[in-house]
Amino acid sequence: MKNIKLTIEYDGTSYHGWQKQNNAVTIQDTIEACIAKITGEECSLTGASRTDQGVHALGQVANFKTRSPIPVEKFPFVLNSVLPDDICIKKAELVDDSFHSRYDAKGKKYRYLIYNSPYPSALLRNRAYHVPAKLDIENMNKAAHLFLGTHDFTAFKAAGGSAKTSERTITDVSLTKNEEIITFEIKGNGFLYNMVRIIVGTLIYVGLGKIDPDDVATIINSKERRNAGKTVGPQGLYLVEVYY
Amino acid sequence: MKNIKLTIEYDGTSYHGWQKQNNAVTIQDTIEACIAKITGEECSLTGASRTDQGVHALGQVANFKTRSPIPVEKFPFVLNSVLPDDICIKKAELVDDSFHSRYDAKGKKYRYLIYNSPYPSALLRNRAYHVPAKLDIENMNKAAHLFLGTHDFTAFKAAGGSAKTSERTITDVSLTKNEEIITFEIKGNGFLYNMVRIIVGTLIYVGLGKIDPDDVATIINSKERRNAGKTVGPQGLYLVEVYY
Repeated sequence: MKNIKLTIEYDGTSYHGWQKQNNAVTIQDTIEACIAKITGEECSLTGASRTDQGVHALGQVANFKTRSPIPVEKFPFVLNSVLPDDICIKKAELVDDSFHSRYDAKGKKYRYLIYNSPYPSALLRNRAYHVPAKLDIENMNKAAHLFLGTHDFTAFKAAGGSAKTSERTITDVSLTKNEEIITFEIKGNGFLYNMVRIIVGTLIYVGLGKIDPDDVATIINSKERRNAGKTVGPQGLYLVEVYY
Repeated sequence: MKNIKLTIEYDGTSYHGWQKQNNAVTIQDTIEACIAKITGEECSLTGASRTDQGVHALGQVANFKTRSPIPVEKFPFVLNSVLPDDICIKKAELVDDSFHSRYDAKGKKYRYLIYNSPYPSALLRNRAYHVPAKLDIENMNKAAHLFLGTHDFTAFKAAGGSAKTSERTITDVSLTKNEEIITFEIKGNGFLYNMVRIIVGTLIYVGLGKIDPDDVATIINSKERRNAGKTVGPQGLYLVEVYY
């Protein structure tokens, strides 16, 4: 048996998220079906992150075991020829039999795009979250840096996650503006359910002047979800990279 | 009667181009129907550029006449509320009664995106043209600059256009690479049918080493379509701006 690690890009717009479920098309089962088609074996694919409906990935990681004689380096080409064009395999690597894409992940990087302009964007409608009112980037940047370090992120966690602890360490954040597009990036050892989308919702409240940037530390310490901002839409969120 | 000039962004993926036609949904008739809906009048919308099926716009310009009492500055908001979300009005301005978006255009800027990477991109599948083989950017840039100036562009014109002369003046070109995305921009006083897509097809041949960059001048002078490169796909093309 070979254990194969895939790096995957997808446009999440048309899928009910990554994880397999009854009566809904997901990214996991779309790829599993394509692997089964080319290997002739049943396939069980383990993903590093269970991205939600509408969330995108530039570098999702998943692994599966196979006895297929197809050379590992041929998998991207062969799989891309049968996958729908909103899912692309960017890399395939042979990894140690014990490698598990989710349990072995040491960290992840997410990106969130905000389209800050009076009117919506046709081309970015499924790629960025639209905020019509002008945002104060300087204050948002100040607030963003308060997430750095190790904190209990209970205030930034949606109900429904399965995490045992709410403590996470954020190692990098950046927030930049280029014309009408604000790009927020955050890297850490792990993220709670909807954590990035609630952090961005809180930063947007800071940008709108509804929350003072310095109050973000207080909100984190409060461990109360109701003190943070709203959960922004999935269309602006990208899983950029998984670290091992 | 008021003459209203609209600046329009659209994702051309789902439309049979700009121009109205029988038995096909186009951008022009989609917007005309929405204007008719909000004004209660029949609408005839004149576009600056007849973009092809699959071609996008960041700044298409169109104008129409109306007796509607809706204040001009309210048109983007009101129209966007009824338009499908792959078409957005970015601006509405009251213009002189004689203004004609096509005849009065003094120039246009187009952008073309190439995704230069071994495997395709899920997120850019309808936004950029995929070239798997590595392209020589330096040679492409050298060739791109040979299009500057006034030339007879017969070699870069598809059959079917209605232009009276094939002479056009190109005032600006740029070609840059950022990670896997090559951005080509070209500005000129006008463009023949498929001209930008044939120029890009020729630049790609230069990038692949099939055409020497210096030969581009000879190809222009030959006035023979068969000497230029192929017409690349519409999905990488964006009408960026129309100048008056």
